[in-house]
Amino acid sequence: MSLKWMSLLLLIQVMYCFNAGSCGKVVVLPMEYSHWLNVKIILDELVQRGHEVTVLTSSAAVHVDSGKSSPFKFETFPTPLTTKEFERHFKHSVNIWTYEFPKYSIWKLYSKMQSMFEEHSDVLESLCKYMIFNEKLRKTLQESKFDVLLADPVVPCGELLAELLKIPLVYSLRFFPGNEYEKQCGGLPFPPSYVPVALSELSDRMSFMERVKNMMNVIFFDLYFQTFNEKKWNQFYSEVLGRPTTILELMAKADIWLIRTYWDFDFPRPLLPNFEFVGGLHCKPAKPLPEEMEKFVQSSGDQGVVVFSLGSIVSNLTEERANTIASGLAQIPQKVLWRYEGPKPETLGSNTRLYKWIPQNDLLGHPKTKAFITHGGTNGVYEAIYHGVPMVGIPLFVDQPDNIARMKAKGAAVRLDFTRFSSEELINALKTVINNPFYKENAMKLSRIHHDQPVKPLDRAVFWVEFVMRHKGAKHLRPAVHDLNWFQYHSLDVIGFLLACVATAIFIFTRCCLFCCRKFPKSRKKKRE
Amino acid sequence: MSLKWMSLLLLIQVMYCFNAGSCGKVVVLPMEYSHWLNVKIILDELVQRGHEVTVLTSSAAVHVDSGKSSPFKFETFPTPLTTKEFERHFKHSVNIWTYEFPKYSIWKLYSKMQSMFEEHSDVLESLCKYMIFNEKLRKTLQESKFDVLLADPVVPCGELLAELLKIPLVYSLRFFPGNEYEKQCGGLPFPPSYVPVALSELSDRMSFMERVKNMMNVIFFDLYFQTFNEKKWNQFYSEVLGRPTTILELMAKADIWLIRTYWDFDFPRPLLPNFEFVGGLHCKPAKPLPEEMEKFVQSSGDQGVVVFSLGSIVSNLTEERANTIASGLAQIPQKVLWRYEGPKPETLGSNTRLYKWIPQNDLLGHPKTKAFITHGGTNGVYEAIYHGVPMVGIPLFVDQPDNIARMKAKGAAVRLDFTRFSSEELINALKTVINNPFYKENAMKLSRIHHDQPVKPLDRAVFWVEFVMRHKGAKHLRPAVHDLNWFQYHSLDVIGFLLACVATAIFIFTRCCLFCCRKFPKSRKKKRE
Repeated sequence: MSLKWMSLLLLIQVMYCFNAGSCGKVVVLPMEYSHWLNVKIILDELVQRGHEVTVLTSSAAVHVDSGKSSPFKFETFPTPLTTKEFERHFKHSVNIWTYEFPKYSIWKLYSKMQSMFEEHSDVLESLCKYMIFNEKLRKTLQESKFDVLLADPVVPCGELLAELLKIPLVYSLRFFPGNEYEKQCGGLPFPPSYVPVALSELSDRMSFMERVKNMMNVIFFDLYFQTFNEKKWNQFYSEVLGRPTTILELMAKADIWLIRTYWDFDFPRPLLPNFEFVGGLHCKPAKPLPEEMEKFVQSSGDQGVVVFSLGSIVSNLTEERANTIASGLAQIPQKVLWRYEGPKPETLGSNTRLYKWIPQNDLLGHPKTKAFITHGGTNGVYEAIYHGVPMVGIPLFVDQPDNIARMKAKGAAVRLDFTRFSSEELINALKTVINNPFYKENAMKLSRIHHDQPVKPLDRAVFWVEFVMRHKGAKHLRPAVHDLNWFQYHSLDVIGFLLACVATAIFIFTRCCLFCCRKFPKSRKKKRE
Repeated sequence: MSLKWMSLLLLIQVMYCFNAGSCGKVVVLPMEYSHWLNVKIILDELVQRGHEVTVLTSSAAVHVDSGKSSPFKFETFPTPLTTKEFERHFKHSVNIWTYEFPKYSIWKLYSKMQSMFEEHSDVLESLCKYMIFNEKLRKTLQESKFDVLLADPVVPCGELLAELLKIPLVYSLRFFPGNEYEKQCGGLPFPPSYVPVALSELSDRMSFMERVKNMMNVIFFDLYFQTFNEKKWNQFYSEVLGRPTTILELMAKADIWLIRTYWDFDFPRPLLPNFEFVGGLHCKPAKPLPEEMEKFVQSSGDQGVVVFSLGSIVSNLTEERANTIASGLAQIPQKVLWRYEGPKPETLGSNTRLYKWIPQNDLLGHPKTKAFITHGGTNGVYEAIYHGVPMVGIPLFVDQPDNIARMKAKGAAVRLDFTRFSSEELINALKTVINNPFYKENAMKLSRIHHDQPVKPLDRAVFWVEFVMRHKGAKHLRPAVHDLNWFQYHSLDVIGFLLACVATAIFIFTRCCLFCCRKFPKSRKKKRE
């Protein structure tokens, strides 16, 4: 479609939206890095449909940039934290997760994970306070009369702001931080027998010992979040609202949960009507590559190319890791395009080219692409699914091991351990996913599933944001589970009552029998007398 | 759109379907009455899209007619049961449910319901046997190489046939006959604290005693189905397949469950990815009324009209009920269109006209229609929702009381007890839903929700039938719950193991302490010595 036609179509859309009186005002509280890249796709579409989008961000923002060419309005609130410090905080966490965690025993891992969560939570709480206690900003936001707040629950504060502004709330989320959150905020049933808890790297088909591991993870997360993390937030939220409340209570008010997966990626599990699985909403057909890159790709001949990226947050590797990778890549017959900002590894082969940035989606959609070496970020994995490219997963942190575990379980990826794999292992993994048709077939199967949906994920995401604006919420999708406490939810009071009834009936029946037995011998005695 | 254009569009659709090689062969095992009317809409659409539809029906069929003008192929198998007998069986059940059940105490009701279920089950089993053991039919079906079987689980047999023909299975269902079925066939989590069990007439917001009632219903259904109904079917299915199996095991293999409700109608509840809620798929905009009817409707002036129908299965009423209704209707200022085949009631007012058949959807969509008196059949309730018409519900049998309970809970209906209501109560109910804007507003709200979906219910239903044909099933939506037994599903083995571990740890710790205590005094003693 030519640009002219596209502009005309856009104009018609915007005109329609204005005429229908359905143009809305969206305020967004985004998370950084890939989360921002993902939600930005929804925001772009909302702007294209004539809605006004305001992005709330701190002066320490790393990727959420308020560049002049942006189609969004930005409300930037000052914080003493600088961008460099904020970036350092993220990178420090990533480094610990990537290089330290794999060395730890299970108990040390739990304890270190806990202290990392707390540190992260402190940073986010301080940012939240700078936003909430900024009177000028709050006044501006109040006066703006937004129709909906779009937030990422990974950054608490959105639910508090929605409550203060008295507007509906839509979440965009990859995964819940544990069973407790799933059940209480989302109201989701969570059977740990076939739903692997986040960060467990398990599949939906677990052996007995895997189910034990899953249950232990459930207990850890529940205890951790109940004991440490929530208390602080509950206190803060109660102070701000001037009434006792909890973070989970406010999160549970979300009208719609846009989950950034779908059943091509995730394992089928119980959900609720206000959960919309919109994974891969950012995916799109490949555009032509830059000329130089296309030439390099074409030079690969029938062997094709391998695309390699560890995502936007990891720009550098240790010398040892970089050389192990480079020497492995040098020995494969394919050409390799490696997104890497660090110093050129000594062992880099002539078949491998380093790029500070690559058009990842366009490369994955190129017919010459044979495999994708990925850290397993949700966005990247989805681009591979979209284009049906098998993967070698080298997961680093947070949900990445889970994502690769999913792709492995679905037969579309081979997994390597980042801190341990050798050049030979990398070569073998690449040979496997490229030469064994099993992986390509499965990747294509996931691709077919992804493309065969009644409505595209992006359109569904936008539809529900617009729905919430049109109807001032989505109360008809809200399950009554949120009105019950855990005791009532599990019917413990009812079961107790019924057991008491049965016990009383048995007691009365027994007493009656005893009474009759006593009475009966007497009457017989009397008769004998 | 003119007929020419529509035909052209249809031709293009069919051509596309043939070119894409995606035209499929659908075999259907439908249920009678409103179930057939509903599934026929899906079948019509499938035929329009170029698929071949074969309807399997017995020679005793009542409404599933193989008229020459039908766009479907029919495979009719002979049975000694006649159409009249089959019809009598349905009407007899309906009469008992309508006139007898309301008089019974809870225990008698359970026992009578049980014997009715058994009688019904026997009739269906005999029909199933006549179909399955018809060698000629089975050969024809085997040779037809169908791509999918569309069945109504209310008529068992579909799952057995799909297993024999080795083809995917899609169900169209209004509700599960109890908790046991929900959990085992569908794999659905069923929290009885906020999910009302079928036939309970409860809402999702229950008082303590209502939750007790719901739990008792759950226990009744579970016990009944496990103890009586399933055994017979399990034995029959095992005999046919020549291996031990159960009806629930075969039902659980269904690829897609098309549920005939949506969240405008039903209460939000946990679901699974292979459940698609397509309620109201038969609804469409109103067409102009026949001339005589339009004149009568227009003659109502500002007062408007009331539409009254008790559905396709109830053609007659007792004289007393008919007169109570007629005298009530005679006293309202609206004109009334009453679908009624019985003798004209003596008390019929001049404002009321009797019709053997009414274009219900067109009437409900007429701007003069103020209210709908309905027995609460799912199809009729959905037409009222579609057009935003408040209801007076006079539920008679099966799911009708549940349907009206839902409409009542959502503020779009007033309920009357069929065997008991007086003329005054009918008048008051009509006055309430017509004059109190609360009911019209809620009906309109449900209508807005119904119309505001990303894809129309019919298109979604057809999409998933086609998906199953394209992909030879929908395995990616099948939750792993089906691979677990109830012990594993509830993690009882894991909980037992963890408790055993904790007990062992405590035991070892205690023994160590005791050992130390014994050792310690001795060493002290020795020291003293």
